[in-house]
Amino acid sequence: MGHLNGKRVAMVIANQFEDSEVIDPKQYLEEHGAQVTLIAPELGTLHGKKGAEMEPDTTFEKVSVKDFDALVIPGGGAPENLRIFEPAVEFTREFVASGKPVASICHGPQLLISANVLQGRTVTAVNKIRDDIKNAGATYVDQELAVDGNLISSRVPKDIPVFNEAIGKSLATVPVAD
Amino acid sequence: MGHLNGKRVAMVIANQFEDSEVIDPKQYLEEHGAQVTLIAPELGTLHGKKGAEMEPDTTFEKVSVKDFDALVIPGGGAPENLRIFEPAVEFTREFVASGKPVASICHGPQLLISANVLQGRTVTAVNKIRDDIKNAGATYVDQELAVDGNLISSRVPKDIPVFNEAIGKSLATVPVAD
Repeated sequence: MGHLNGKRVAMVIANQFEDSEVIDPKQYLEEHGAQVTLIAPELGTLHGKKGAEMEPDTTFEKVSVKDFDALVIPGGGAPENLRIFEPAVEFTREFVASGKPVASICHGPQLLISANVLQGRTVTAVNKIRDDIKNAGATYVDQELAVDGNLISSRVPKDIPVFNEAIGKSLATVPVAD
Repeated sequence: MGHLNGKRVAMVIANQFEDSEVIDPKQYLEEHGAQVTLIAPELGTLHGKKGAEMEPDTTFEKVSVKDFDALVIPGGGAPENLRIFEPAVEFTREFVASGKPVASICHGPQLLISANVLQGRTVTAVNKIRDDIKNAGATYVDQELAVDGNLISSRVPKDIPVFNEAIGKSLATVPVAD
């Protein structure tokens, strides 16, 4: 329990997720009192790139943006699987529009690109997708953390500690969802 | 030996290549008489996503577009590794500008995006990168083969037979490189 008591976080997940980018932020947020809900296209065990297995709590069709205080988009191959699943894209688009914190790391912004919400925004990400971020109308910065309004982003697993802190800080200041 | 005798093909490769998208086109082209050169950022064994190992023949700094009659860009995770290596991006940009055949499959167009050569062109690819292709100014089509001028593209491993035939057909009609 802690300063995030009562806060509800949506974390979107699919196969080929980057293990540490799911496990570590989830643990950090839960240790500080937040409730993290793993949302996937369908129920059933998901496999990380490095071998971790995770069970989604629910599916996109059963959730609504109003149920959550923040969205976290881990990387790996999962964002590529989510960006071609329209309910995930729509959920992400609505979340960004809501003004609530939306945090992405590594390949996470691929989902933001497909949600068409990066025009004029500043984000970081793994450098392998920097040209796609620029072509989506955003400014790409190569730094461990970028915060632009409600968009929080980091590059790679080694940035996770600062990424977690930024999510926690942002989440602590938003009102609890209805 | 066959109708591609004397034709020289550059195939660009890096770690995490999609095994069949390297092995099958290489075999097809060689069986028909072409010489395939595997070009990588550096020498040393490369590992495919499914476990295959390949030895590059040379590196980007040692080759020139004029040495080849066609370029093949296999998919998997390799294009993401090549698109952040400037000599690979420059080689690709020059190849497309040369008018010689440039064939990409799966994630291959990620390298074309970073080479900034897709404006106004029509390509196919794995659907996971379709939005990045559109944002690069191209028209994305979902079909097993797309041919637009010197750009030949296919989507996924199951398209390889038609992909190979299209490369062979295009290569058979270009003059042999100097």
